[in-house]
Amino acid sequence: MTPHHRPQLDIEAVSDALLGEWKADRLESRRVASDPRFHNIPGQSMEEQRERVLGQLRLLVEEGAIQRAYPKDLGGKDNHGGNLAAFEELVLADPSLQIKSGVQWGLFGAAILHLGTRKHHEKWLPDVISLELPGAFAMTEIGHGSDVASVATTATYDPETEEFEIHTPFRGAWKEFLGNAALHGRAAVVFAQLITQGVNHGVHAFFVPIRTPEGELLPGVGSEDDGVKGGLNGIDNGRLHFTHVRIPRENLLNRYGDVAADGTYSSQIDSPGRRFFTMIGTLVQGRVSLDGAAVNAMKAALAIAIRYGSERRQFPGPDGRDTVLLDYGQHQRRLLPLLAQTYAMQFAGHRLLTAFDEVFSGKNDSDEAREDLETLAAALKPLSTWAALDTLQEAREACGGAGFMAKNRLTGLRHDLDIYVTFEGDNNVLLQLVGKRLLADYAAQFKDADKAALAKAAVGQVGEGLTRFGLRQIGQSIADLGRIARSVEHVRSADAQHALLTDRVQTMVSEVALALRDATKNVPKGDKRAKAIAQAEAFNAQQHKLIEAARAHGELLQWEAFTEELSRFEGDTLKVMTWLRDLFGLTLLERHATWYLVSGRLSGSRVEAVSSYIDRLIGRVREVALDLVEAFGLTPELLRAEIATGIEAERQEEAQAYVDERIAAGEWPIHEKELRARAKAKAERG
Amino acid sequence: MTPHHRPQLDIEAVSDALLGEWKADRLESRRVASDPRFHNIPGQSMEEQRERVLGQLRLLVEEGAIQRAYPKDLGGKDNHGGNLAAFEELVLADPSLQIKSGVQWGLFGAAILHLGTRKHHEKWLPDVISLELPGAFAMTEIGHGSDVASVATTATYDPETEEFEIHTPFRGAWKEFLGNAALHGRAAVVFAQLITQGVNHGVHAFFVPIRTPEGELLPGVGSEDDGVKGGLNGIDNGRLHFTHVRIPRENLLNRYGDVAADGTYSSQIDSPGRRFFTMIGTLVQGRVSLDGAAVNAMKAALAIAIRYGSERRQFPGPDGRDTVLLDYGQHQRRLLPLLAQTYAMQFAGHRLLTAFDEVFSGKNDSDEAREDLETLAAALKPLSTWAALDTLQEAREACGGAGFMAKNRLTGLRHDLDIYVTFEGDNNVLLQLVGKRLLADYAAQFKDADKAALAKAAVGQVGEGLTRFGLRQIGQSIADLGRIARSVEHVRSADAQHALLTDRVQTMVSEVALALRDATKNVPKGDKRAKAIAQAEAFNAQQHKLIEAARAHGELLQWEAFTEELSRFEGDTLKVMTWLRDLFGLTLLERHATWYLVSGRLSGSRVEAVSSYIDRLIGRVREVALDLVEAFGLTPELLRAEIATGIEAERQEEAQAYVDERIAAGEWPIHEKELRARAKAKAERG
Repeated sequence: MTPHHRPQLDIEAVSDALLGEWKADRLESRRVASDPRFHNIPGQSMEEQRERVLGQLRLLVEEGAIQRAYPKDLGGKDNHGGNLAAFEELVLADPSLQIKSGVQWGLFGAAILHLGTRKHHEKWLPDVISLELPGAFAMTEIGHGSDVASVATTATYDPETEEFEIHTPFRGAWKEFLGNAALHGRAAVVFAQLITQGVNHGVHAFFVPIRTPEGELLPGVGSEDDGVKGGLNGIDNGRLHFTHVRIPRENLLNRYGDVAADGTYSSQIDSPGRRFFTMIGTLVQGRVSLDGAAVNAMKAALAIAIRYGSERRQFPGPDGRDTVLLDYGQHQRRLLPLLAQTYAMQFAGHRLLTAFDEVFSGKNDSDEAREDLETLAAALKPLSTWAALDTLQEAREACGGAGFMAKNRLTGLRHDLDIYVTFEGDNNVLLQLVGKRLLADYAAQFKDADKAALAKAAVGQVGEGLTRFGLRQIGQSIADLGRIARSVEHVRSADAQHALLTDRVQTMVSEVALALRDATKNVPKGDKRAKAIAQAEAFNAQQHKLIEAARAHGELLQWEAFTEELSRFEGDTLKVMTWLRDLFGLTLLERHATWYLVSGRLSGSRVEAVSSYIDRLIGRVREVALDLVEAFGLTPELLRAEIATGIEAERQEEAQAYVDERIAAGEWPIHEKELRARAKAKAERG
Repeated sequence: MTPHHRPQLDIEAVSDALLGEWKADRLESRRVASDPRFHNIPGQSMEEQRERVLGQLRLLVEEGAIQRAYPKDLGGKDNHGGNLAAFEELVLADPSLQIKSGVQWGLFGAAILHLGTRKHHEKWLPDVISLELPGAFAMTEIGHGSDVASVATTATYDPETEEFEIHTPFRGAWKEFLGNAALHGRAAVVFAQLITQGVNHGVHAFFVPIRTPEGELLPGVGSEDDGVKGGLNGIDNGRLHFTHVRIPRENLLNRYGDVAADGTYSSQIDSPGRRFFTMIGTLVQGRVSLDGAAVNAMKAALAIAIRYGSERRQFPGPDGRDTVLLDYGQHQRRLLPLLAQTYAMQFAGHRLLTAFDEVFSGKNDSDEAREDLETLAAALKPLSTWAALDTLQEAREACGGAGFMAKNRLTGLRHDLDIYVTFEGDNNVLLQLVGKRLLADYAAQFKDADKAALAKAAVGQVGEGLTRFGLRQIGQSIADLGRIARSVEHVRSADAQHALLTDRVQTMVSEVALALRDATKNVPKGDKRAKAIAQAEAFNAQQHKLIEAARAHGELLQWEAFTEELSRFEGDTLKVMTWLRDLFGLTLLERHATWYLVSGRLSGSRVEAVSSYIDRLIGRVREVALDLVEAFGLTPELLRAEIATGIEAERQEEAQAYVDERIAAGEWPIHEKELRARAKAKAERG
């Protein structure tokens, strides 16, 4: 299994690729995250954690660690990509610290920045940036989690006093799970239905003071503490409710919609639906940065588990010495595909971050670019946040009991990151959003096409795709797929991987599209209600498949990102990175082999060939696994896991030295087994 | 999707089946677990948790909750099955409480009971039972987790003083992760290599005092606190080390091996290997009871998520009202197969518990029965403990942010149960053990057979199996498999499910066996070292497949247990339980569809038929899902999850009532969307 020549990895080149475009911001943020003042402390009470993290936020301000995204004239740097890159690294200090800073500067502050106008920026942002004004982001309600358009809090305009009245009419409308709401917030950006002149203009954001500087709740404002959570206990999550709370008209964050003194509503976006999605879309940075944070957690998990697995020995091998865990076939199968996946997700994350920066810096800001960005974030964030939980868990188990100790960090990271899969958009809801976009793009190809074209498309023979990288592959030609799939030799080529992954997305989307189209064909013309019900039922029946299609789309994007990255490398490094890309691609094919078999894309023998080649790749990658985690650049200050410090190898050596010494001294007791074997041999001889 | 006739489930009958043979013990234990004095308290510091749980252990003694397994003349009941059944329910009070009681009475006490002899029982067990003598179970070492045979702690006999000297020669030999070691333990059962007269007789257990009644460590004994863990923080896990600590000769727990005053070793079991496994085998109850505890955690998770999912609404449906989560196709796909799996695992657990009771009560105690029991426990414990983590996580995500709140219990249970997958035998190591047993049974069939028979066996045409229920199915005739698999109509029949599941185990095992046999055929005869290396390499290459085969074996046993249980039911209840069994079986076929396709057992269209039938079953099971969790019998005192109390439905009703009232009063503001739609319609008319 061992290759004759162990490849020499250019660790610096790989490390650079992993750091990506905002390398300097990342390294600066890692410097901060390495500082013990920013570290989490296992075992603190909830109260202690909350106090610690609030103090750490103040230190972040001092360090200049959080200002990057704000306008230059307000002390920022207008550096949107670098801001999120730096934010993503903070997870290594403490996820509570990261997310609480995200609440303050990435949600509360960013809402004022992106939904407010100049007067709001000047009035509030300096205090937001300096943490003089800690705030909450009051969007989610108890009754409406993922469905923001349906929030029930109202902001009713009163032209008499030129005020909005913020009101939560029932308990389901209470704002829920808000960081800074239980204790530290002095204001909140509240999302509420804007009602003026008897018309509901949909959800808008309002700046609402909630506490005095001394921490007393203002009249009409109520708060409940969410208490202990499954993780992130350094954040004071809580509920907020408002009983006829009045705020000045100017507190409407009016970038996309405004109310004149007389109560007249105006907006530059006519469609209420598009207006809502435009407003919500400005908050995509949460999803973008969670994707990157999740990848960082995966890197930490694998750095810990692979280093420990390279030292830890268990059960004697044929040479008498205990076998290193990472030499076990099962251990390799558990960890090394996750390593390949982490690389793929990191590279995909870089593309997402670039897309984000291009939109928010204005380099490429259009409706289409924003929509692509949102779809890309909705495709990648679910996959990486789920993968982070799986990777942390596999790493924890691979380290056995040691993995369960808080001092080895795996469980704490997993507890904290658990919520990443349902906040900033529930992962399933996000994937469904991607699926709907895929369906829309698919339908757009056939606006003028007849049924025959649709059928043809369904078997995978359509033209070029649509957008720059969001969804371009859907329509890609895969004319050579049949030939490739028939050849065992080529089933592992990059072209074959690409064609197979692409074909799967395309075929799944077209199958769902056809099923949805057929759903209404028996409904009497003009019966809108029957049609709506039939459509809803058909969609529900296809929901699982559509979400799987969206997942496949995200995986394809990750594979493409990894493949594009290969052009950076040469020599041995290129070879190793290609193994890793192949391991990622073939693991996807193996995971979805049922689909490839049922759809006739791969034969049984090709599927077996994929699995054997994965086994060979794993054997090769094992040889360079330590280099590949070394390239993560996670220093001991960032990892802070006792078992990743070489302590296990020291213990092994100490034990071996003791045994060797005793044997040399003739003091090692013979084992009864050996005694019996000798007696048996003697009896046979005699 | 909704069946015309909603079946009436006999909840009591189902509940009885779930409670099983030791119903009375389980109900009594649930009574205890319902008492607030035994509940966990989220947010307590580690120190507070440890104190609380120690106090709760004392209360368990008062309640008579822990004595069942001990001999009648020492205040027990000789009730081995009932003891574990009751123990399994304690997880609902608090997993820390459960596991700490398991350390005291199921490990420390049980080791004295099963490895010691009458004099030990009389001397220590009364104080163990009363908790006068809290103790640790010192088996695992830092350097040797799963590999107990290799522990490095020594117990060297000194005939001069008639004492053993317990010694940990290096840091890797320190005993690790021991409950009661950091604080509360006053003695420990220490596993050490027994050395006398210059010979190492392998691992034996010794009773070693470690602390004074005042809590001071005894001379030569050292302890380190493991500190905060990823869960179970009510237990004072720690390390123990011994520097030439002397104990009387009588402190050897000498049921299976003894040392005379002059140092002569004796044992009724000649083979040191079999002696070791016999001693370790007495401790199987840990694995048996973790299996049952895991199933209870799954039941709690699903009771919470399914009740909440039946009330929670999100996103408007075609009727204008928000849709109930459990009516979403994806939500059903996420939760309902887990419900079927929980039932299957419960019924399999009952058979495991019965097997355990038969061995330990002496009803059916033979080497063969013990070996079967150990294999069965090693097959089921990994599957159920992993399933518990997956189920808790899916339930947590299905409840969104509410699932992340400690007061809704899902995260806490998951944190605590995390370690269940690697303690009392690492899950992968256990499955490998099962795999080895499957290989041995397989080989035993061919002792006198020639190559042709082996080849014939490999394609699945051998005779009846071997043991009563551990492994009987391996050799079962599946002559009719070909016919079944060719018929779409019958792919969902019980016979087809059984044949397909059985065939998979058998074929996988025979494939691994053939690969292992072929591995040494090119090794020169007599080259033992080369043969050992070739065997080890071949085994390693097959490790992943063997573990998968063991998993398949466990799944088959679960399916069989569920199927046997069906005979208890009739009418609608039988119908529903059969749906559930089919959902379990077909989900297994779907999960392993790649294997069935590659091996030619199922065609692509049959695999698609399996998936569509799963969709239909899920639609039916959804109708009775609340009844099926009701049958778990988990009262509010046992669940203690706010979101499972009906609070969500109340909030929905309050909100709906508010909206209805406002609409009736003509005070509901019109939405801009509706206004625009009306204007558009008017324009079109005009």
